[in-house]
Amino acid sequence: MTSPSVSTQYFTAFEPPNPLQLEGGQTLGPITQAYESYGTLNEAKDNCILVCHALTGDAHAAFSSAEDESYIGWWDRFIGPEKAIDTTQHFVLCINVIGGCKGSTGPASLNPETNKPYGTDFPIITIADMVTAQKALIDHLGISTLKAVIGGSMGGMIALSWTAQYPENVRTCIPIAATGQVSPLAVAFDSVGRKAIRTDANYTDGHYYDQSTPTAGLSVARMIGHITYLSEQSMDKKFGRDLQDASGYHFHFGSEFQIESYLNYQGEKFVNRFDANSYVYLTKAVSYFDLANSYGSFDNAFRKSTARFLVIAITSDWLYTPKQSKAIVNSLMRLNKDVSYAEIDSYYGHDAFLIENDELNQALTVFIRGDQV
Amino acid sequence: MTSPSVSTQYFTAFEPPNPLQLEGGQTLGPITQAYESYGTLNEAKDNCILVCHALTGDAHAAFSSAEDESYIGWWDRFIGPEKAIDTTQHFVLCINVIGGCKGSTGPASLNPETNKPYGTDFPIITIADMVTAQKALIDHLGISTLKAVIGGSMGGMIALSWTAQYPENVRTCIPIAATGQVSPLAVAFDSVGRKAIRTDANYTDGHYYDQSTPTAGLSVARMIGHITYLSEQSMDKKFGRDLQDASGYHFHFGSEFQIESYLNYQGEKFVNRFDANSYVYLTKAVSYFDLANSYGSFDNAFRKSTARFLVIAITSDWLYTPKQSKAIVNSLMRLNKDVSYAEIDSYYGHDAFLIENDELNQALTVFIRGDQV
Repeated sequence: MTSPSVSTQYFTAFEPPNPLQLEGGQTLGPITQAYESYGTLNEAKDNCILVCHALTGDAHAAFSSAEDESYIGWWDRFIGPEKAIDTTQHFVLCINVIGGCKGSTGPASLNPETNKPYGTDFPIITIADMVTAQKALIDHLGISTLKAVIGGSMGGMIALSWTAQYPENVRTCIPIAATGQVSPLAVAFDSVGRKAIRTDANYTDGHYYDQSTPTAGLSVARMIGHITYLSEQSMDKKFGRDLQDASGYHFHFGSEFQIESYLNYQGEKFVNRFDANSYVYLTKAVSYFDLANSYGSFDNAFRKSTARFLVIAITSDWLYTPKQSKAIVNSLMRLNKDVSYAEIDSYYGHDAFLIENDELNQALTVFIRGDQV
Repeated sequence: MTSPSVSTQYFTAFEPPNPLQLEGGQTLGPITQAYESYGTLNEAKDNCILVCHALTGDAHAAFSSAEDESYIGWWDRFIGPEKAIDTTQHFVLCINVIGGCKGSTGPASLNPETNKPYGTDFPIITIADMVTAQKALIDHLGISTLKAVIGGSMGGMIALSWTAQYPENVRTCIPIAATGQVSPLAVAFDSVGRKAIRTDANYTDGHYYDQSTPTAGLSVARMIGHITYLSEQSMDKKFGRDLQDASGYHFHFGSEFQIESYLNYQGEKFVNRFDANSYVYLTKAVSYFDLANSYGSFDNAFRKSTARFLVIAITSDWLYTPKQSKAIVNSLMRLNKDVSYAEIDSYYGHDAFLIENDELNQALTVFIRGDQV
């Protein structure tokens, strides 16, 4: 069965003299956002499900790409006709975040003031800024209320922010493998990743677009990230101490262990598809993410929300832990909100939300369908 | 109360034509080992306790340094008169590992063939090679049997290797926060650290001794290491999401969070005291460490040992976990060896063995004294 193919679309707004007022005090505009949609917006415009991608994701969430048929969306297993996020019923939307490098305005985009890439002249953005930009696109599409906002990892932070920033415009919120407050451990890993990039001799303070790029640093940052996306158990099961050459150690500094080879491969593959500055900016946005800090408390962040929540955590996720998901749930329960909690039993670690998983599929299906009754 | 001060001593052996035959097939010689001793070797020469340092440690385990009175040994809290490792009773010895950069022969040492620093012409060494070199020094001192070999982290691996390589020459073995088989997770972290160093533009394939050194990469490697030495709980307690400037985010890429500042400080401090190549070589030795691989099984590794064992793990250590310590204990129990297991209840993570800890102090004191009955 071939999936239908879909083209990425672009929406530009925040043209001067009306740029986006960023949380950090600076402004940004114009802003282009790349997005894709699957399914049809109904007449009432109340069947839109916004799916939010993770750190290095893009707008291509489902179906095959019109530009490259072999490029299947990152969450195609959950989005499509009769799938958990059913495109025969819903208008599913996915928007590339600002600050990224997958079509939306980010550090690699041309700075209209200089006609050169922004580099680190790009302003620091936050998760809240991403949401504010997305709201403009939602408004542009004539949608006042989102039937659901769903996302994993950073996408889950975006989903949570939607309910905090636009409490009356979200009917269902499903953060998956996310957190309301990024932990010191996660801040630490992201900080070291940024350090690796920013101290790469090719980084040259972020203005490297006309020269060699900081691939070594970006690769190291990605490798650190990948360690945190796995679990100890998945590493043990998938790689153990297995060697590339089972005959034994070769006493050189190349990748001898399969886990080394895997991480190196992930690092090298990544530098071809992702901009180092975007990695720096997006991880910074993640490090900043703390609804308790932004609103005074989780309770304050969620108090006005009219959404029903399904908070999903993964048992073996040590980056954004079940404990952190439960802190969100506890707040919502205190507030007497409609909240369900699902802990997906998986040893795949943080990345489990991207992998085939019956429990996750079931939880999404039931909860989304629950709203249609 | 001032501690006595102590001078580092040096022992050179393995002079050509009798170099050390390394596990990897190459040879190394001559080899100098820096060492210190505290207390007096008795006439029977049976009161020697060998203390083995961790990855970036040195021979200065106790007392103040004769060269710098303010420089107190890294385990001074446990070694001294009337302390857990009692220098009124014992001749305590600590030897800097080969491959290191604290006085023993390592990559920064002069290669006698070129009269330049070895750099990456230094052969790859293993934990077993470190022990073989140490045995030569022990022999030189006329000591046939060690009363005890004790070490934390990599030092614990060295202690375990002693019992495997010289099963009749060790009476007591106390590995602390160690493992008999380095996990894929630990291999992964060390591998990324090496990658950060080896891709630093200043690394120039390890021959950097007459130029700028790869401080950026080494700093990143150390920061990664430090994350693994802490625990999630100790990070939460010590740093949380606290900012350097409590007034709020400043929207720049400097160290805003205290955890970032701490890691950066650790990274920057480290590059002044440690050689990047030694970090590469020693972490490689650690990655290789796997007694089950070297001997076929843990049981085979320990079968001939005549030592009594005290295996000590730290509850919150996720680098070399209690589970890994228990695997050693289980093997020793199967072999009907004299083994005790102590799990130190601490939230400080891997580094707890370097910190004041009553339980650890008690366990060491009682077990070492137990042999004197």
